[in-house]
Amino acid sequence: MPANLEVLPVIPFEPARLERLMAEAGMDAVLATTRHNVRYLTGGYYNHFFARTARQAATQYMAMVGVTRDLRTAFHVAGRGETADIDRFGQLWIDDRLAAQPGQAMTVNVARTGAAALRRRGLQGATIGVELPFLPADAFMALRQELPAATLVDASGLLGELRAIKRSEELDRLRAVHLLTAEAIQSAMTNGGAGATTRELAAAVARGIGARDAAFLYCLANVGPSLVRTPGDERWVSGRPLHLDAGGELGDYVSDICRMGSFGPEAPAGSPAETSAEARAMYEACLEAQDRLRSEIAAGLTCGDVQRLGEELLRATRWGEHSRFVAHGLGMVSHEPPDVDAASTRPLEIGMVLSLETEFKHADIGHVKFEDSVAVTASGCVGLGDHARDWCLAGA
Amino acid sequence: MPANLEVLPVIPFEPARLERLMAEAGMDAVLATTRHNVRYLTGGYYNHFFARTARQAATQYMAMVGVTRDLRTAFHVAGRGETADIDRFGQLWIDDRLAAQPGQAMTVNVARTGAAALRRRGLQGATIGVELPFLPADAFMALRQELPAATLVDASGLLGELRAIKRSEELDRLRAVHLLTAEAIQSAMTNGGAGATTRELAAAVARGIGARDAAFLYCLANVGPSLVRTPGDERWVSGRPLHLDAGGELGDYVSDICRMGSFGPEAPAGSPAETSAEARAMYEACLEAQDRLRSEIAAGLTCGDVQRLGEELLRATRWGEHSRFVAHGLGMVSHEPPDVDAASTRPLEIGMVLSLETEFKHADIGHVKFEDSVAVTASGCVGLGDHARDWCLAGA
Repeated sequence: MPANLEVLPVIPFEPARLERLMAEAGMDAVLATTRHNVRYLTGGYYNHFFARTARQAATQYMAMVGVTRDLRTAFHVAGRGETADIDRFGQLWIDDRLAAQPGQAMTVNVARTGAAALRRRGLQGATIGVELPFLPADAFMALRQELPAATLVDASGLLGELRAIKRSEELDRLRAVHLLTAEAIQSAMTNGGAGATTRELAAAVARGIGARDAAFLYCLANVGPSLVRTPGDERWVSGRPLHLDAGGELGDYVSDICRMGSFGPEAPAGSPAETSAEARAMYEACLEAQDRLRSEIAAGLTCGDVQRLGEELLRATRWGEHSRFVAHGLGMVSHEPPDVDAASTRPLEIGMVLSLETEFKHADIGHVKFEDSVAVTASGCVGLGDHARDWCLAGA
Repeated sequence: MPANLEVLPVIPFEPARLERLMAEAGMDAVLATTRHNVRYLTGGYYNHFFARTARQAATQYMAMVGVTRDLRTAFHVAGRGETADIDRFGQLWIDDRLAAQPGQAMTVNVARTGAAALRRRGLQGATIGVELPFLPADAFMALRQELPAATLVDASGLLGELRAIKRSEELDRLRAVHLLTAEAIQSAMTNGGAGATTRELAAAVARGIGARDAAFLYCLANVGPSLVRTPGDERWVSGRPLHLDAGGELGDYVSDICRMGSFGPEAPAGSPAETSAEARAMYEACLEAQDRLRSEIAAGLTCGDVQRLGEELLRATRWGEHSRFVAHGLGMVSHEPPDVDAASTRPLEIGMVLSLETEFKHADIGHVKFEDSVAVTASGCVGLGDHARDWCLAGA
């Protein structure tokens, strides 16, 4: 085990922050078992074979990182065949690397191995945080059986909070995945998008994200004046506004971007079939609100201030009654801390990331939306994925 | 609820098969909650937004299909906003469509809603199959709390068994995903593969699978004489054998394909640096074994016969001591029923799918492997994904 944490620069989070969060939550240990939290705590290692599909035979792959308030006792549990891969990864700060017990059910084997590691640390009667909304039931039962005196509580909130402040490497990853998602959206609109169905447009975004070496997660697509966002048979036709709201994933860091465009001649507002001119004006109002938000967002501003400002900016437009403003933290999970609502007095901190959703839902025009993410910096905030933000005029 | 199951051709499995499996397992109800089993039981419906990443905020998306031995009482639980999507899907055979209870934790809300549905069916004291290696611990606890008199047992094996016999629509899907995976492997080898690192080759396979509108799952890559299969910095150089063993996913149906090739001049066997000629001879022995296996595989042959024949064919080659033969069922899960081992007396049935792995691990040559899948038909078996099976001679 590491003798001196000071010489371990690759611990991918602030040890004191984890210690404080554990003390506040009354947890003696945390067992992380989701792919994203295992990757976060290891600094990036995960079994490449099972990363995109865990299921195999009648069970699934599972790994575990165990931490106590003394990080020198951290441990990692993985499959029996992973030793060479972990060695090749070469950056794992956790010295106690355990192979799961043999047996048919990986989830149970990993849980038992983790329980034994906690017993060796004298934590058989401890309060142990686990990821209750994710931990498989059989692994949960194995922990209960192997640690009958322990109290198992939910650590999902704590792990989300630990991730709330991003390091520069994480911001680089978030910038990359946001940029490539914006590029994929732009490409889907301009390369054959005109006249395509929303299903075809969403598939083009998926291919575009994959072509840029990230994993496609989702694409919502709306052609006004419909308010439906599920990809389907509807076509993006001349004069109609299209929005594509997509997400991708790069090493578990996710993007969340919405862009809009139209093609063909624009008709005046009120024209029943051709609504893109009005939609464009609404979209530009979203962009203006985003600019104002960016000029205000800085460390120290409260999350409540962000929410109130966003709502006010959209409500002050001509379409205020149709407006909606949502802001949420973003990183390895969409909608992670900080939580943003009008009642929050929590101040923003350097390294936090917010996704800002500015939108109007108008029955005669459609669902107009612009979404971008920003990172809080020492001097204010910076956009992640500032690519092709303007209304896209696609060639027919 | 459906009044007459006979007029519901879209039930995507054989009702009598499910009833028999439940009777054998002593289960009164089954609650499926994994994406693949929910898709299987609904005949294809799943929330498109959460299909590729379930996690959001401090919980995750979860859906549920509940079945009893009387399929007229089947029910489906999904998110509160999914009603319109389910209506648009238009083929759901389950009439009792429930929206999850409101609340922060989707997993718990779906579990409670499912538990209430079981209580309404008088099953509060029943034996209920759940997917223990997948069901989130908090959902499991909610079921325990809401159904204190029920017995919760693992239904993973039963659901795998239910899926063991594929319908023609499923075979079409499996053929499509195997073909496109074989194309992606071939393309990665021939379009810039020569001289690339195994990491670059695996990334090219990933892009190729995504470009064909499927989801990339994994790519193992080996350059002989190394036996390492984890993608990394090793280069595919002239005269060396490369194998790419990849999987993709199309609507939860998975592929599992391995192909090999080389480029540049071939050197004679025993040449220390250039091993592709010998590797190619071994690969061709794999292909011969595959042809023999295909000529024997038919309904009625036992899984034990398949295993023994595969082992014998490879052992009879010049490299017999280095050989390994593995066969496994394949469909929505890699390594699903039927299980294949030498002791099995289970006969193959029409509609079963087997993945046949023929391989040699040789310290002087590398890891030589060919893998294909076959479906058992009325007249024997057919290959799925019979594309570019021959040794690939890639241009430098």
